[in-house]
Amino acid sequence: MTSLDSLRDAMRKFTHDRDWERFHDPKSLALALVGEVGELTELLQWLPAGDVVALAEKEPLRSRLGEELSDVLLYLVRLADVVGVDLGEAAMRKMQANSAKHPAP
Amino acid sequence: MTSLDSLRDAMRKFTHDRDWERFHDPKSLALALVGEVGELTELLQWLPAGDVVALAEKEPLRSRLGEELSDVLLYLVRLADVVGVDLGEAAMRKMQANSAKHPAP
Amino acid sequence: MTSLDSLRDAMRKFTHDRDWERFHDPKSLALALVGEVGELTELLQWLPAGDVVALAEKEPLRSRLGEELSDVLLYLVRLADVVGVDLGEAAMRKMQANSAKHPAP
Amino acid sequence: MTSLDSLRDAMRKFTHDRDWERFHDPKSLALALVGEVGELTELLQWLPAGDVVALAEKEPLRSRLGEELSDVLLYLVRLADVVGVDLGEAAMRKMQANSAKHPAP
Repeated sequence: MTSLDSLRDAMRKFTHDRDWERFHDPKSLALALVGEVGELTELLQWLPAGDVVALAEKEPLRSRLGEELSDVLLYLVRLADVVGVDLGEAAMRKMQANSAKHPAP
Repeated sequence: MTSLDSLRDAMRKFTHDRDWERFHDPKSLALALVGEVGELTELLQWLPAGDVVALAEKEPLRSRLGEELSDVLLYLVRLADVVGVDLGEAAMRKMQANSAKHPAP
Repeated sequence: MTSLDSLRDAMRKFTHDRDWERFHDPKSLALALVGEVGELTELLQWLPAGDVVALAEKEPLRSRLGEELSDVLLYLVRLADVVGVDLGEAAMRKMQANSAKHPAP
Repeated sequence: MTSLDSLRDAMRKFTHDRDWERFHDPKSLALALVGEVGELTELLQWLPAGDVVALAEKEPLRSRLGEELSDVLLYLVRLADVVGVDLGEAAMRKMQANSAKHPAP
């Protein structure tokens, strides 16, 4: 069971070991995040909307989706770290705010 | 310490309780993810690149970043769930692949 | 019939008259473009895929799509101008390259 | 001087000649647009913000930017066409609305 903290730490070490911190300002990371989101949407764009779930059970889409969803997550975790946001705590708080904003019937 | 599994379960219940599963096909979720990424980039776009980290330590940017980073994460977690990807496991595997592809010096 | 050159000139004057050139470096404009793309996808995300064209014939979607498509275009035109790309000429050249890459049957 | 109408007509013919209209529903085109935006941001993400304009004067960045800006434009023009928006007219109207909203000093 993967925690956001462990991914944050892994990304922090990965960046440090390669001396890439100088590239990781927030605006650059946001652009990199968008690049990965674009690779994710490219996997889906021409698939019939009703077929995606079934296609995603099989290769090669299954692995490709795992890779691109992961790339988005890793840059998101890294961006949160660089701007000093505890992403796991923020997400739990946002879930509660969403529940209050949209009460279940 | 928030796990991706707990966020997935919370989003799954949130969606189910509102009967919103019918909206959550992968292509629609991907578009919603992009919408949240856009709200995130709007926070950063006109800030001087070198000032963002310091500005993010203070309100209102601190809370706004937490909210928008969270919205991106929540839709990402939901999209991964809908297409049957174990996002935490996939991200750990991708980190290892990235390390192999870009060996530390 | 609107030319890309006239939109470029209008954006150039709009920016100059407000002394906003200092904000319009390419990375900032790219983030702003993404923000507008996000506003566009938010209009579409929860609509049934097969209903969008019919819904877009009526208000309020018709006007909203016009506005958000325009915002994306205006930042795209502005970004192209700032990086010195003749967007109309580049697009015509890309169309020809696409036709060569994907020959019609 | 390229008009948006001529690009729209070229994209319409390109799509028709390949029998690709069945893929071009608005949500799919929006995802394709995001994919191209991602390819554009990937060109910029790690460049020093202050160096992009100078780098864009030289190859290979110059041609690469022209291609990716064009791909975004072509899908934007196609999406506008499919949802029945006159993009040139809408953009001119949006420019006027922006000028009214942000009066020049």
